[in-house]
Amino acid sequence: MNPNTRSTPHSTPRSTTRSTTTVPLGDRSYPIHISSGQTDTLGRSIRDAIPGISHAVVVMDESVVDPWGDQLCQSLVNGHSANDQAVRVSRIEIPSGESSKSIEQFDRLMQWMLRENSDRASVLIAVGGGVVGDLAGYAAASFTRGIRFVQVPTTLLAMVDSSVGGKTGINLPGAKNMVGAFWQPSLVLVDTDVLSTLDEKIFLSGLGEVVKYGVIEDAEFFAWLETNADALIARDPDALRHAIETSCQCKANVVGEDERESTGRRAILNYGHTFAHAIEATAGYGTLLHGEAVSIGMQMAARLALSLGMFDEASLVRQTELLRKCQLPIDYADADPAKMLPVMMKDKKVAHGKLKFVLPSRIGCVELVDGIDDDLVVAAIGQSTASR
Amino acid sequence: MNPNTRSTPHSTPRSTTRSTTTVPLGDRSYPIHISSGQTDTLGRSIRDAIPGISHAVVVMDESVVDPWGDQLCQSLVNGHSANDQAVRVSRIEIPSGESSKSIEQFDRLMQWMLRENSDRASVLIAVGGGVVGDLAGYAAASFTRGIRFVQVPTTLLAMVDSSVGGKTGINLPGAKNMVGAFWQPSLVLVDTDVLSTLDEKIFLSGLGEVVKYGVIEDAEFFAWLETNADALIARDPDALRHAIETSCQCKANVVGEDERESTGRRAILNYGHTFAHAIEATAGYGTLLHGEAVSIGMQMAARLALSLGMFDEASLVRQTELLRKCQLPIDYADADPAKMLPVMMKDKKVAHGKLKFVLPSRIGCVELVDGIDDDLVVAAIGQSTASR
Ligand SMILES: NC(=O)c1ccc[n+]([C@@H]2O[C@H](COP(=O)([O-])OP(=O)(O)OC[C@H]3O[C@@H](n4cnc5c(N)ncnc54)[C@H](O)[C@@H]3O)[C@@H](O)[C@H]2O)c1
Ligand SMILES: NC(=O)c1ccc[n+]([C@@H]2O[C@H](COP(=O)([O-])OP(=O)(O)OC[C@H]3O[C@@H](n4cnc5c(N)ncnc54)[C@H](O)[C@@H]3O)[C@@H](O)[C@H]2O)c1
Ligand SMILES: [Zn+2]
Ligand SMILES: [Zn+2]
Repeated sequence: MNPNTRSTPHSTPRSTTRSTTTVPLGDRSYPIHISSGQTDTLGRSIRDAIPGISHAVVVMDESVVDPWGDQLCQSLVNGHSANDQAVRVSRIEIPSGESSKSIEQFDRLMQWMLRENSDRASVLIAVGGGVVGDLAGYAAASFTRGIRFVQVPTTLLAMVDSSVGGKTGINLPGAKNMVGAFWQPSLVLVDTDVLSTLDEKIFLSGLGEVVKYGVIEDAEFFAWLETNADALIARDPDALRHAIETSCQCKANVVGEDERESTGRRAILNYGHTFAHAIEATAGYGTLLHGEAVSIGMQMAARLALSLGMFDEASLVRQTELLRKCQLPIDYADADPAKMLPVMMKDKKVAHGKLKFVLPSRIGCVELVDGIDDDLVVAAIGQSTASR
Repeated sequence: MNPNTRSTPHSTPRSTTRSTTTVPLGDRSYPIHISSGQTDTLGRSIRDAIPGISHAVVVMDESVVDPWGDQLCQSLVNGHSANDQAVRVSRIEIPSGESSKSIEQFDRLMQWMLRENSDRASVLIAVGGGVVGDLAGYAAASFTRGIRFVQVPTTLLAMVDSSVGGKTGINLPGAKNMVGAFWQPSLVLVDTDVLSTLDEKIFLSGLGEVVKYGVIEDAEFFAWLETNADALIARDPDALRHAIETSCQCKANVVGEDERESTGRRAILNYGHTFAHAIEATAGYGTLLHGEAVSIGMQMAARLALSLGMFDEASLVRQTELLRKCQLPIDYADADPAKMLPVMMKDKKVAHGKLKFVLPSRIGCVELVDGIDDDLVVAAIGQSTASR
C-alpha cells in the first residue's frame, strides 16, 4: 500500500479507478495495472505499454472469449490514432480446465504460432485464469527461445497469484508443473469487471490466496480483510481493487527478492501449500478447488505452529474466522495423514527427503521451519476433523 | 589464445593434455575443459566440478553409448573416494539424427525423468552431438523450470559450437530451432578421443565452423589453420585441442558480451549462415551437412563483401584455399537464388522484413551490413557455380 507505486492518473474520465504496482526485477521489471470498468480499453493499454507492437498472438480460455477476449482483440485493432501502426491479431481458444496444461496443447500452440507467421517481435497475450496463463507463458518463454508476453488474468486467483512472478509451465501425467520456465511478462492487466462472469465457488476460492498474503506479510491487510470480507464477497469493485493491489504488492516484493526460488525467500508464498498439495493429491485433483485446499492447509499449518508453541490460539481463531467469513472450508473430514505424509515427502520443494514448513509466528509473519516431528504433522492434519 | 584463461595443471600424469577456457557470464560463468586421452575420467571431472551431485541423468546419442557413454557412466559411479557420496545414475538413449529434436522426444525425456524420480537437484548430462545437446539442454532448462546440466560433446561441431553458449531447443515440422530456451550448462567436457569413432564427412564438416572463427575474429588463428589443416584432418590430438580451445574462446567471448542475441554482437557468429540456411532449406535438409553449407555460405558472403568493395580478392582466395584444404565444398551447383531469397527473407534473424548480412572486411574482422541490393545477393549466390 505504498502510495509511490501508484501511477499518475490516466487522462480518461474513468482514470481514477486505475492504479499500478511494479514488480521490481531490474531490467525485467514490469507494471501491474489494476482497474475497474475499463475492459474496452485493454488493447489500448497494451499498445501504449508496448510501442511498435505489430503482431499480437492472443491466447484465450474458451470461456472468456465472449465478451472479454473479443473486447480485447477489438481494442487492439481499433481506436488507434492516425500515426499508430496497425496491429495484426492472431487468436486461438484453449479448452477450459487443468487438462489443457499439457504437452499436447503446448505443441498445438507452437505449431499454430508458426503457421500464423509469428516471429521474435510478436507479443503473446494470455487471457484467462492460471491454466491459460501458465500454458501461454511457457509458450512465450519457448517460442524462438522467448518472446514478450502480457498477462490478462480473468480469475481472482490468477489476478493475485499466478499472473505475477514469472512461473510458467505445464503438467506431466500425474505431476503438476513439472515442465516450464521462469519467464516474466512485460505487463499484467487486471480489470475487476471480468470477474462478473466468474462462477461463485471459483471466485471464493481465490480469496484463500488473498488471506494468505495477510497472514504471511501484512497484519494491517489482514485486519482490513476482517472488516471488508463482505464487500469482497459482494464483488465490490473498490474492495476488489484494494485486495488485488495489496496482494500483488506482497507477491511482487517477494518475487523481487527471490525471482527463481533460490534464496528460500520465495518459499513463504507456499504458506499452507505443502498441506494443500497433499490434500489435493490424495483427494484426487478436482475434488477441492486449489484455494479451498489452501484454506484447509493454512489451518493445518497454523495448528502445527500452535503445537510447536510458536503461534497463539487467539491468532489461530482470527485466521479461522476470516476464512469462514470468506466462505472457505476450514477442515477436510477425509484428510488421511497416512496418505498425505508420503506425498509431502515427494513435494519438489523438498531437497533430499527433508521436509520444510512455512509456519506463522503471528498474523503478518511466517518462518521456514524444518526438522519437524512427523507426529506433530499427523496431529495437525488429524485435528482437521474437529471443529474449532 | 589468451594464456590467462588456461587452468593450472591438473595433478594426474595426463594433466598436461588438459586446458580450460571459461565462458564469462557473471554468476552463470562456466568452464570448458579440453583434454585428450581422458575419457575414462569424465565422470570423475563431473563429480569434482559439481560437489554433492547425487543423481545424474545421462542422455546419450545411441551411437556413442559404446564406448563413450558407458565409460562416462562407469566413472560417475566408480572410483569415488571413501568420503564421496554415491551417485545414482539414470541413463537413456536417443535415436541418432536431427529428427530427435522433436516435441515427441522432448515429451519422452520428460516423462522418463519423472519416472526416474528426478528432482531439482538432479544433474542432466548430455553425451552426443548438437542434436542430443540441443534436446537435452532444453529438457534441462524445462524440468521443474530448470536443473543443472553438463555438455559432453562428441562431434567436432558440438565441441566448437553447439555445446557452448546456452542455446538449446527443438524443431517444429518445417522449422528448425523454433522452440527452446537460453540455458547455460554448468560445465562442458571435451575429450578429443571421442572423435576417433566419428564418420569422416561429419568430422570435416565441423571444420567449417572452425574456419569461421578465424575469419570473424582471429587472423592469427586463421594463419595457424592454413599451416595446420593437414594435422587437423589427421585428427592429431594436439592440433585438435588448439583448434577447439581457440574456437571455444572466440565463441565464449562473443556469448559473454551478448548472451541472448539482444545487442547484435552475437550475430557475427552467423557469418555464412544466412546463405547456409537458405541452401539447406532449398536443397532439402540432409543433402548437405551443416558445416558444408556454412562453407559454401561463407564463400557467398565473402563474394558479396567483395562486390560491395569492402573485402579484397586476395583474402577471398585465402578463405577459398583454406576451405579446400579442409576438404569442404566451396560451391553448390544447384544453388537457386530465386528459391533462396524468399527463405532468407523469412529467416528469424530478420525483424520486419529487413535483410542483414555478416560480411568480412578483412580476415579476422566482420561487420553487420544491411540494406543490400537483392541483385548483389543474387550475383553472390550465382557465382557459386563458377570455379574461382
Ligand atoms: N504460475 C503461478 O505462479 C501459479 C500460481 C498459482 C496457481 N497456478 C496455476 O493456476 C491454475 C489455476 O488457475 P485458476 O484457478 O485461475 O483456474 P482456471 O484457469 O482453470 O480457471 C478456472 C475456471 O474458470 C473459468 N474462467 C476463468 N475466467 C473466467 C471468467 N472471467 N468468467 C468465467 N469463467 C472464467 C475457466 O474456464 C476455468 O473453467 C493451476 O493450474 C495452478 O497450477 C499458477
Ligand atoms: N545450440 C547451438 O548453439 C547450436 C549451434 C550449431 C548447431 N546446433 C545444432 O546441432 C545439430 C547438429 O549437430 P551435429 O553436427 O553434432 O549433429 P548430430 O548430433 O546429429 O551428430 C552427427 C552424427 O554423428 C553421430 N555421432 C556423434 N558423435 C559421434 C561419435 N563420437 N562417434 C560416432 N558417431 C557420432 C550421431 O549419432 C549423428 O548420427 C543441429 O541440430 C543444429 O541445429 C546447435
Ligand atoms: Zn496457491
Ligand atoms: Zn553453424
